[in-house]
Amino acid sequence: MKQKITPNFDKLGGLLPAIVQDIATGAVLMLAFMNKEAWDLTLSTREAHYFSRSRQTIWHKGATSGHVQRVKEIFLDCDADTVLLRVEQVGGAACHEGYASCFFRRFEEEGWQVVGRLQATFHGVDTEDDFWERLDCAGSEADEETRS
Amino acid sequence: MKQKITPNFDKLGGLLPAIVQDIATGAVLMLAFMNKEAWDLTLSTREAHYFSRSRQTIWHKGATSGHVQRVKEIFLDCDADTVLLRVEQVGGAACHEGYASCFFRRFEEEGWQVVGRLQATFHGVDTEDDFWERLDCAGSEADEETRS
Repeated sequence: MKQKITPNFDKLGGLLPAIVQDIATGAVLMLAFMNKEAWDLTLSTREAHYFSRSRQTIWHKGATSGHVQRVKEIFLDCDADTVLLRVEQVGGAACHEGYASCFFRRFEEEGWQVVGRLQATFHGVDTEDDFWERLDCAGSEADEETRS
Repeated sequence: MKQKITPNFDKLGGLLPAIVQDIATGAVLMLAFMNKEAWDLTLSTREAHYFSRSRQTIWHKGATSGHVQRVKEIFLDCDADTVLLRVEQVGGAACHEGYASCFFRRFEEEGWQVVGRLQATFHGVDTEDDFWERLDCAGSEADEETRS
């Protein structure tokens, strides 16, 4: 029997956190947020759509660069307020900085160590899409104070 | 060279999303939130501490039941506003419902299919800790409308 449950967009003011995992490697790639429209677009196209908090618009990841995320499986958590997307990451790099995963820094006592490897398939093409993804990733709020 | 970066707690009003992944299986277990105090406690004890949004207090996961999460690795994402914890999940079940992962429901066209397996090591003991974890997981906001 299938459960008829609607994801709960209310806990974060209309946004549903989406954890993105590479279905081939199991690596956690990124965290993004979906509004209801992004959720519906993801289901209908089977390519990941998010809501860009910096731009306040729908963000079809990789739309211009071609580095889309093909959604193979979607899971919902116990309290229906977070989804897990298992995706095929076209181009091999989910992160705008060219790493497979946005989580490329590991905590060590003395600071954060970059452990991610740059993907050979990432060309750093500065398309409009890359520009916007950089904005979404770096974020207007991630100012220099956090990187001191 | 290590990077001196402080996680950014400001984007979600003092809360930092923490994705939790089983270091042995690669399974994504849950999403939780940390305030600065929970972050500091996680670093000092190497057991996962979160901020309970329903209780508005620090939540040392598994403190009473013994089903703690031993934090083996921590990663920070590109814009420093999300962390990934790779943990050893004591007891085998991260979810209060007895599943290894809170993401035990997979999307299918007709509805959500339960695909997670109940863990033999989960006894469903109704300790005070389990009670609170159930509250955190089910959440006061996850009312019947979302489960129609």
